[in-house]
Amino acid sequence: MASARGFTLWFTGLSGAGKSTLADEISRRLLRHGIGHEVLDGDVVRTHLSKGLGFSREDRDTNIRRIGFVAELLTRHEIPVITAAISPYREVREEVRHKIGSRRFIEVFVTASLDELVRRDVKGLYAKALHGEIKNFTGVSDPYEAPVNPEVTVDSENESPEQSADKIWDYLVQNAFIRVEQLVGHA
Amino acid sequence: MASARGFTLWFTGLSGAGKSTLADEISRRLLRHGIGHEVLDGDVVRTHLSKGLGFSREDRDTNIRRIGFVAELLTRHEIPVITAAISPYREVREEVRHKIGSRRFIEVFVTASLDELVRRDVKGLYAKALHGEIKNFTGVSDPYEAPVNPEVTVDSENESPEQSADKIWDYLVQNAFIRVEQLVGHA
Repeated sequence: MASARGFTLWFTGLSGAGKSTLADEISRRLLRHGIGHEVLDGDVVRTHLSKGLGFSREDRDTNIRRIGFVAELLTRHEIPVITAAISPYREVREEVRHKIGSRRFIEVFVTASLDELVRRDVKGLYAKALHGEIKNFTGVSDPYEAPVNPEVTVDSENESPEQSADKIWDYLVQNAFIRVEQLVGHA
Repeated sequence: MASARGFTLWFTGLSGAGKSTLADEISRRLLRHGIGHEVLDGDVVRTHLSKGLGFSREDRDTNIRRIGFVAELLTRHEIPVITAAISPYREVREEVRHKIGSRRFIEVFVTASLDELVRRDVKGLYAKALHGEIKNFTGVSDPYEAPVNPEVTVDSENESPEQSADKIWDYLVQNAFIRVEQLVGHA
């Protein structure tokens, strides 16, 4: 048996860094422990809350504020939330942290070098961005402001997803966001 | 002691009919029973999720879908939700009902005659709308499609807010949305 209090696990990092992979892995672990929670997928939110918004700084910030608004509601009602939007701008991330409350906001910075991301390029987006076919592409033609003091940093270039997920999970347990009666392996 | 399962209490009706008054009264009663819940106020949602949207049918529908998206999330996690937007169009209300699930969606139609609303005109909006100073004003220059088969209908012209709130509260108790160990008065 396990239980949780409300928190927002806020992944941030470049496209392809591994935010969604880790969000899904943490979601699976929570499910395995019977802990209800919500994953606010960036694409789903864009469809339901932010249709019509583009990728200018203003529109990106609005999208992030909306994710933050929903995350705050759920977190306040003790539902753990996982978000995995690029969220490139520091200022609006801090605004969301403040709104949710810094005791419940866990910023997870997912890093990997641009070289590595261009090498992976799972969706072929970096190639297009580098050829100027996509405008406002974070890390190429648009800025990414790395967190100054994230609660957790994971390096997807030098860690396996399992290792990264372990770091995040340990943070959640050690800070009493989740309470697991008997620690079990994740194998 | 009391407990609740997730539901969405969806108020619909013309401006000034008494949706917010009743939403607040039900909210107070839930609080008095220690039942956590969320009121999704129409203005707050417009500020946080729908800034930039106007009052065309398309924009109104988008706003209602966004309220529905958030209400569904909370309801699914067993958090009772109260919404009080005019929500004039039947089709999108039915869409939200379907999304949340008809077993958990409680449509509350708050009625009053237009004459009565023009007489009250608490915010002075009807006078402006009737003089053509506000476009797209529901009930005057924009349609309102009344629910065909709402779970609860209250008549704010012929009932006191307490009487209307009692009807809604009784519906919640009788349908086991809330369980109150000992029924106490609301005086």
